[in-house]
Amino acid sequence: MTVSVPADVLSRLKAVLGEGGWSQDPERLAPKLLEWRDRWTGTTPFLALPRTTADVAAVVGICFEAGAPITTQGGNTGLVGGQIPQGEVLLSTERLRAIREVAPLDDMLTAEAGVTLAAAHEAAAAVGRRFPVGLASEGTATVGGIVSTNAGGTQVLRYGTTRQLVLGLEAVLPNGELWNGLKRLRKDNTGYDLKQLLIGAEGTLGVVTAASLKLHPVLASQAVAIAGVDSPQAAVELLQRAKAESGGAVEAFELMGRLGVDFVLRNIAGSREPLAEPHPWYVLAEFASGEPGSAEAAMERFLAHGLEAGLVRDAAIAQSQTQAREFWGLRENQSPAQKPEGATWKHDIATPVSRIAEFIDQASAAMRRFAPGARVTAFGHVGDGNIHFDVLVPEGGDDADHSARRDAGSRLVHDIAVGLGGSISAEHGLGSMKTAEAARYKSRVELAALRAVRHALDPKRIMNPRVLF
Amino acid sequence: MTVSVPADVLSRLKAVLGEGGWSQDPERLAPKLLEWRDRWTGTTPFLALPRTTADVAAVVGICFEAGAPITTQGGNTGLVGGQIPQGEVLLSTERLRAIREVAPLDDMLTAEAGVTLAAAHEAAAAVGRRFPVGLASEGTATVGGIVSTNAGGTQVLRYGTTRQLVLGLEAVLPNGELWNGLKRLRKDNTGYDLKQLLIGAEGTLGVVTAASLKLHPVLASQAVAIAGVDSPQAAVELLQRAKAESGGAVEAFELMGRLGVDFVLRNIAGSREPLAEPHPWYVLAEFASGEPGSAEAAMERFLAHGLEAGLVRDAAIAQSQTQAREFWGLRENQSPAQKPEGATWKHDIATPVSRIAEFIDQASAAMRRFAPGARVTAFGHVGDGNIHFDVLVPEGGDDADHSARRDAGSRLVHDIAVGLGGSISAEHGLGSMKTAEAARYKSRVELAALRAVRHALDPKRIMNPRVLF
Repeated sequence: MTVSVPADVLSRLKAVLGEGGWSQDPERLAPKLLEWRDRWTGTTPFLALPRTTADVAAVVGICFEAGAPITTQGGNTGLVGGQIPQGEVLLSTERLRAIREVAPLDDMLTAEAGVTLAAAHEAAAAVGRRFPVGLASEGTATVGGIVSTNAGGTQVLRYGTTRQLVLGLEAVLPNGELWNGLKRLRKDNTGYDLKQLLIGAEGTLGVVTAASLKLHPVLASQAVAIAGVDSPQAAVELLQRAKAESGGAVEAFELMGRLGVDFVLRNIAGSREPLAEPHPWYVLAEFASGEPGSAEAAMERFLAHGLEAGLVRDAAIAQSQTQAREFWGLRENQSPAQKPEGATWKHDIATPVSRIAEFIDQASAAMRRFAPGARVTAFGHVGDGNIHFDVLVPEGGDDADHSARRDAGSRLVHDIAVGLGGSISAEHGLGSMKTAEAARYKSRVELAALRAVRHALDPKRIMNPRVLF
Repeated sequence: MTVSVPADVLSRLKAVLGEGGWSQDPERLAPKLLEWRDRWTGTTPFLALPRTTADVAAVVGICFEAGAPITTQGGNTGLVGGQIPQGEVLLSTERLRAIREVAPLDDMLTAEAGVTLAAAHEAAAAVGRRFPVGLASEGTATVGGIVSTNAGGTQVLRYGTTRQLVLGLEAVLPNGELWNGLKRLRKDNTGYDLKQLLIGAEGTLGVVTAASLKLHPVLASQAVAIAGVDSPQAAVELLQRAKAESGGAVEAFELMGRLGVDFVLRNIAGSREPLAEPHPWYVLAEFASGEPGSAEAAMERFLAHGLEAGLVRDAAIAQSQTQAREFWGLRENQSPAQKPEGATWKHDIATPVSRIAEFIDQASAAMRRFAPGARVTAFGHVGDGNIHFDVLVPEGGDDADHSARRDAGSRLVHDIAVGLGGSISAEHGLGSMKTAEAARYKSRVELAALRAVRHALDPKRIMNPRVLF
């Protein structure tokens, strides 16, 4: 798609943004036009660098009037290309960096869109609180980005996705009007919840400029363990026990196949075999509780019962923060460790928790038939029914050949997930990558309703026009 | 408002609904046209009693075509008159009573709209789970009703409002089309979350016909205590301590003023003074945890620390289920106990938790000036910043006089709540009662956006046309 933005629009944008508030310098633009996995490259006639919410409103207002499309970008850590413009004006939130308020009595902090997730974590920690969205990319991912993509991460099981962790929003709507919805209420039943529409809208219903985030207490006791198990089904059964026995203390419950652990051991320096013998699957579990010693005790009990029941084959509880980080490193490096292995078809599917094992079985079998020799690895958030199911080029195979078959292969994987009542995008969103694909799976009735809502708020379709529906 | 529904529409409705599927019998209609607090009475030309989702789709389709307005009613326990038709066709969900599925591995149950909350609780308990929405009216309130009003209740602090507890919805949209969104996924990032629009929409965006509800584990240990405190501010400080010390174990944290406790002791048979001496304010706290004995231990620690710090004046931990129910009775009977006392102005406000004490102070002072002698009572969910602030006719005063000044008095209370960053309806919704009032407090930008969304989905404004905006 090529989009041309009239010269007079560009000069008006330059005028309102002022010096330092925009760029057309190819070197300045380059890092924002390349997705970090090198899968998407983009073009833009103009980079807007607003410094205030009022600047954002001015930019959007000018573009709305002219019908000029805009793509908004935060930390550029998205995995589906939604943030990479294809000719649109690029609005970066990088200068919207203020943490406006930290209110421990309200368990809330208000941060502007360009604040990194790591900075939000620090601000919360400074008052003895935490913001429980954990992403490997937290040093770069921004508040605006996690809101606009409804980011998930490793703590969804206990705290929900970003959708559950936003108390209020400030946003510029597609017509350039500023909506101040920065409330900090736990309850507010006065009609449709406008912020819920903007969360996960991938920038199509406006530009999120600030968010009031819900904080949780820091918990006194924590336990991290890794367990070898025979199958995904064993992991699902263990999850049920963990939930019931720990009574709400499960922070994370992650699954990893052996092949993915092999990739980490081979490609990530400093990683170590976690248990004495290799196992076909691993569970990484984290418990946390307010009572000193309680999480550790619950973890020991849970693993002992799991061993007795024959569901756990072997297990280790981290004896230090360092060891806990080592265990987590095996999980968090699953994706980076694939890079040296060659081309990959990546999937971010969800199914009901009860059907995860079925999904992994069916999808693995389908890949054996469709792409013999391809290396299938599955890992993810079993507690949320969210599996990253990745299919790598066969050992010694050709990357280009493998990539050429991606769409057909992914279609098979997605059909299986949806057939089991699942989703083709659990946490990454649709972006440029899955927009067309998603239209296949949504019902006509739902698509019509969603398009009507979008048209109502953005009649000229200027906001991130490439994505969603 | 008088609405006339053409005779041919009525005969088409009768034809699709069949015998037993509709009524125009005044006696059959009467209980559905009267709100339980006797504040709202309604009229309708026709009561539709669909038995299936397909029936609902047929009814809505006929009405949409003809532009005939519809009000949907569940258990008729709403407090703001939204469910009482003023001339519209009345669609009752009372025959949509199936629990379609209970899936413990997915921590989910799917219930039709007319299933009572109590029946949903029972179905969850039968598989060792719970659905943590607790309302005094749970024997009558329905699943469709709690979804459409985003019901809160006493466990919001830990589990969120209904909005956080719905995994999927089935609904008939205003154009009569059936949307099947009965997913059971924990994560699904494929565009706008249509169910979030319908939750709390008070029937204006369609008829919810079934919902997949999120279940939680039953927790092994529980502790209920009542504490006498000097002020709402002391309660807020205790709440902070409870959250931090219990590490997520706080199920409920409720506040009651002494006057409301007096009403219960006087008007509700079997109620008893909870502590040796009366106190100006009371906190009712419930902790729950998965570890046997842990909630009790945490409660004892919390109260001991509170006594040491001078925040708790006296306290009692329930020694049995019976005593726990007795303590809860003091809280749950706050509203019924007002009835014999005469006319009341009721308010369901929220503020940030940090400003609750300020709200109670300011609003009480305003009432002393505006309505000298009126009896002010405040109680509610301090953990959610949600206070029911009620103003009763002076002792020996005239009910009619008091009621006549309600709107002016409520205006003062609402102005104070909104001035503190709050809401005029924390959990009851807007309904007929607060629709006009809400328009005063929402920004022009937000109202325009919300109206555009409504118009996009219901261009003829047939669904519950009296309410929201």
